[in-house]
Amino acid sequence: MLSALGRAVRTQREAQGLTQETLAGLAGLDPTYISGIERGLRNPGIKNVARLAKALRTTISRLTCGIEQ
Amino acid sequence: MLSALGRAVRTQREAQGLTQETLAGLAGLDPTYISGIERGLRNPGIKNVARLAKALRTTISRLTCGIEQ
Repeated sequence: MLSALGRAVRTQREAQGLTQETLAGLAGLDPTYISGIERGLRNPGIKNVARLAKALRTTISRLTCGIEQ
Repeated sequence: MLSALGRAVRTQREAQGLTQETLAGLAGLDPTYISGIERGLRNPGIKNVARLAKALRTTISRLTCGIEQ
């Protein structure tokens, strides 16, 4: 599940041509934290998922669609 | 945002006639933690949101739909 969330974040980020550093800046988060999320190593709080979704110009709901599988 | 998540959890729980204690048991979480989430006082990790969604027989995506507003 964390891996699937990480893949979703990476896919969205790369689709928008953003680096981890740029996304981190937009979301107000640390680049190493973004890296950890993308690798499925972090269990972000819903507030940080909301920050990521907003920075990626999407919603929590869309970003987390299908991550249970 | 945390308040909206809490309302979504409470609405789903009550629609299924579950007590906080029963939901806690189904999700493997503490009833006081469920209570805190429903009142918007907790910032649950995405893994716990997944547990709640599963216990409520829904998905993270559906449970979090619209909580940005």
